[in-house]
Amino acid sequence: MFNAIVRADTLQATLDSVGVLVDECKIHFDDAGLEIRAVDPANVGMVDLTLDTDAFESFEVDEGLIGVDLVRLQDIAGMASGDQLVHLELDEETRKLHISIDGLEYTLGLLDPESIREEPDLPEDLDLPANIVIEGRDIDRAVKAADMVSDHIELGLDDSEDVFYVAAEGDTDDVHLELDNDDLIDLVSGPASSLFSLEYLKNMNKAIPKDTEVTMELGEEFPVKLHFDIAEGEGAVTYMLAPRIQSN
Amino acid sequence: MFNAIVRADTLQATLDSVGVLVDECKIHFDDAGLEIRAVDPANVGMVDLTLDTDAFESFEVDEGLIGVDLVRLQDIAGMASGDQLVHLELDEETRKLHISIDGLEYTLGLLDPESIREEPDLPEDLDLPANIVIEGRDIDRAVKAADMVSDHIELGLDDSEDVFYVAAEGDTDDVHLELDNDDLIDLVSGPASSLFSLEYLKNMNKAIPKDTEVTMELGEEFPVKLHFDIAEGEGAVTYMLAPRIQSN
Amino acid sequence: MFNAIVRADTLQATLDSVGVLVDECKIHFDDAGLEIRAVDPANVGMVDLTLDTDAFESFEVDEGLIGVDLVRLQDIAGMASGDQLVHLELDEETRKLHISIDGLEYTLGLLDPESIREEPDLPEDLDLPANIVIEGRDIDRAVKAADMVSDHIELGLDDSEDVFYVAAEGDTDDVHLELDNDDLIDLVSGPASSLFSLEYLKNMNKAIPKDTEVTMELGEEFPVKLHFDIAEGEGAVTYMLAPRIQSN
Repeated sequence: MFNAIVRADTLQATLDSVGVLVDECKIHFDDAGLEIRAVDPANVGMVDLTLDTDAFESFEVDEGLIGVDLVRLQDIAGMASGDQLVHLELDEETRKLHISIDGLEYTLGLLDPESIREEPDLPEDLDLPANIVIEGRDIDRAVKAADMVSDHIELGLDDSEDVFYVAAEGDTDDVHLELDNDDLIDLVSGPASSLFSLEYLKNMNKAIPKDTEVTMELGEEFPVKLHFDIAEGEGAVTYMLAPRIQSN
Repeated sequence: MFNAIVRADTLQATLDSVGVLVDECKIHFDDAGLEIRAVDPANVGMVDLTLDTDAFESFEVDEGLIGVDLVRLQDIAGMASGDQLVHLELDEETRKLHISIDGLEYTLGLLDPESIREEPDLPEDLDLPANIVIEGRDIDRAVKAADMVSDHIELGLDDSEDVFYVAAEGDTDDVHLELDNDDLIDLVSGPASSLFSLEYLKNMNKAIPKDTEVTMELGEEFPVKLHFDIAEGEGAVTYMLAPRIQSN
Repeated sequence: MFNAIVRADTLQATLDSVGVLVDECKIHFDDAGLEIRAVDPANVGMVDLTLDTDAFESFEVDEGLIGVDLVRLQDIAGMASGDQLVHLELDEETRKLHISIDGLEYTLGLLDPESIREEPDLPEDLDLPANIVIEGRDIDRAVKAADMVSDHIELGLDDSEDVFYVAAEGDTDDVHLELDNDDLIDLVSGPASSLFSLEYLKNMNKAIPKDTEVTMELGEEFPVKLHFDIAEGEGAVTYMLAPRIQSN
């Protein structure tokens, strides 16, 4: 059984956070809420999203799993205004999802979960010694500036390990952003410097609210992890992005 | 003689209501006001629009007829802000229309009315037993949702004849909207169920204000008629849309 | 030395005023402020822009000259919100411009001034007897209306020389705008009538604020000069546009 009612803006934030990486995904649910894990086709960017039962107006489920066309589901959720309620109910027999928005009923054909790319396990035990807490709007600025000069972006802590930096190098132009303890919400020192594909970080950035605190875990030529809350703290998103080999 | 002054928003609503179906039209005028009737090239959608003299700030005309390029006239009207006055004056000799907006004068070459597709007569005596009055925004929601799954849309009353429904069936997904007496402004019962091309209804929907009451007349595999007011009740639009043969 | 701090909106207005004509330009600076002169590749439209030191929050320069990619510099300035401060500092050795916006540092490779099209001298001694002062929004209206019917626009004073007119003639439609002393901020009489490429005037119009007073100097088949202020009067822009031969 899956029978839940959720605000449209909560549903939209949930779907958008995953939709920036993949077009289809599996949604797991049990009495704790729902979880979505997904990895992009190139195995470079991963997402792990949880949404607690408290994020729902009503949540009656047995443990289960559905496969969905995210693009389609985003379109449907997009028909509702932010504070409207969306009622989601799984028809076990037909394997269709009934979605009601103020009298409008949409019957969504589900995907066979077997047909969807296998879910990743986001490693918990990565050695990511540096840890910063940064505003979403600063990530946005850094990503947009870097995008003007390069396809890659370097994230790290400087040698003194008390300043977080973002750097991008183009053929003629460079971009550099430094944020110290005063600019950041928090900074835990450690050696960190890694190069990433800007394309992925741009997509992740689209789903990160500008006024959100984002925790960033970094290491030396290691993946970066980005954590932030959605649904007023009742949901959590973790992105992990694999590093690129630094050529210099 | 045709010499009239009208608010830009009234002129825009008038032209937009016809422009969603055709690019050129004949405009008839006499001492009661003006009237436009038009049918799309495929003879599927028709419009009959009247605008009373009271919709004008000033209206001095002898009975007559002009042919206009609607797209061009919409562009000109679009240069004015809503509450600006537009002065329209026909030069009988040159057969050009002088359009003045706050000192700006546009001279519009008219079309030979003979060159414009013949005007339809919207049948008055159709057997359309069901009759509902619905808000423009509900038509908008139904049309946009149906558009996500199909090229067709079914409009009718359910078997009990006290619920108006909209339905669209796609390959994997369906859309259904039910509105009863509480959701509608009015409902007159009668057997009704017809399938329509969504393309036409989408175009008509563009011209229907969201906060307007729309009267919809329906029958069994019969055309639908949509009536709504423009120009604060001084103008009236009727759309008629021919049904498609239901395949099931 | 070039080391200056300026509000982002002042920098944006400066760059946009030149960017509507050319993609690259030389920027001259000395202790009076900065100056940019440029002409489009076809030698039809010219711009002369000055920005006084008072337009800057801080301005420490030795006389000098840099060549810039305007499009790139506009993109960078566009990352800042209007009231943010932009710090510009020239690195004499590397010939790069360091641009800082709230902690974000952009290093812009400069262009060899020798590689940029030679700067024009806007003639001071043109015989332009007619002179009007007009609101930017009236230029906008005239340009947009003319654009609906023609590629050319005629500007002049009527025979009585007390009415400024704009005219454009299309194959079937004409546009005419007349503004007299009451509509204009000022009018100095003189014989004036010239035809211009609308393409250029459209581009210049993009950079003219709607609520600005524009002084227009006109003659008989002579160039038009347009003067307006930017940066709250601390900067001045002059456009000059060459006339086209009138065919009639």
